[in-house]
Amino acid sequence: MKEVIAVVRMNMMNRTKAALNEAGIDAFFAHEAQGRGKGFISASVLEGAESGYEEAAAVLGEKGKLYPKRMLTIVVPDEQVDEVVEVISAANRTGKPGDGKIFVLPMGDAVRVRTGEKGKKSIS
Amino acid sequence: MKEVIAVVRMNMMNRTKAALNEAGIDAFFAHEAQGRGKGFISASVLEGAESGYEEAAAVLGEKGKLYPKRMLTIVVPDEQVDEVVEVISAANRTGKPGDGKIFVLPMGDAVRVRTGEKGKKSIS
Amino acid sequence: MKEVIAVVRMNMMNRTKAALNEAGIDAFFAHEAQGRGKGFISASVLEGAESGYEEAAAVLGEKGKLYPKRMLTIVVPDEQVDEVVEVISAANRTGKPGDGKIFVLPMGDAVRVRTGEKGKKSIS
Repeated sequence: MKEVIAVVRMNMMNRTKAALNEAGIDAFFAHEAQGRGKGFISASVLEGAESGYEEAAAVLGEKGKLYPKRMLTIVVPDEQVDEVVEVISAANRTGKPGDGKIFVLPMGDAVRVRTGEKGKKSIS
Repeated sequence: MKEVIAVVRMNMMNRTKAALNEAGIDAFFAHEAQGRGKGFISASVLEGAESGYEEAAAVLGEKGKLYPKRMLTIVVPDEQVDEVVEVISAANRTGKPGDGKIFVLPMGDAVRVRTGEKGKKSIS
Repeated sequence: MKEVIAVVRMNMMNRTKAALNEAGIDAFFAHEAQGRGKGFISASVLEGAESGYEEAAAVLGEKGKLYPKRMLTIVVPDEQVDEVVEVISAANRTGKPGDGKIFVLPMGDAVRVRTGEKGKKSIS
């Protein structure tokens, strides 16, 4: 099993959820986060700077500014990792900085509290 | 060391904290999350649907709806993982969908910032 | 690659961000959390108790009280882990309980959604 963590734009959450549901993946957790990558820039700031607005250009120059993002956690069996990464990537790729990151972490075990089931059974 | 992540019902947090404290585990982090498993359904919706309320039945039929949950992170030495999983399971098991999930992740190292202590010393 | 998770005091976030930026690390995520370690105590409560205020002393005696903290997630290549841990430690060490914890977790893979780049390329 793996823990797949995706950090995506806030306004892409519904589209991402829909894409995951369509792929048959309907168990996941989400929470708000703030973040930035080397190129984490909000679309409106980018467009503003491209249109010559000084304020947007100034924001673009700021170092270390954090933007509100959504962090999504999905636990899947090893053989489903590639599919999940592909589904999330396809749903979030706009080609502009800020499209997000996906991280894949090893997972030791998982337990469904209601039944005590462990491993793959607990997430299927 | 392992990172144990538990996703439980919001109204079960105090009971879970008390159970962990009673077991001598008093170092952990918590944050809000939204989530759903294959069977993540709020107790009131389930009871409503069982009692024949149409609104509750409709909610029950929705795909991909996320419910507010609490996510709990506890870092423990390997030999304490089974106990922590058992304590959290016992505190949260109602037998109804939505009881939650527990994930166990490998951890490379831990550091206590105040002293610089590493490994098991940093969490004891 | 490793996932470095730091749990620090809320009022230390700006100082921590500045220290990371200065070290050339400008890609990370942050979110609010509540937590406590064996010695997670707010500075004002500690000072109050030291000054003899009964209320602060009572809070100090409470078991299982959770304090608001900030949780910071940074993904770095293996060879940068020691530096990141040192930078965060130096920025947050006051010598008083509550300075925080740093956890280092193994990471399987990372993907930059915009380009599809994987591994170290995705985080550089």
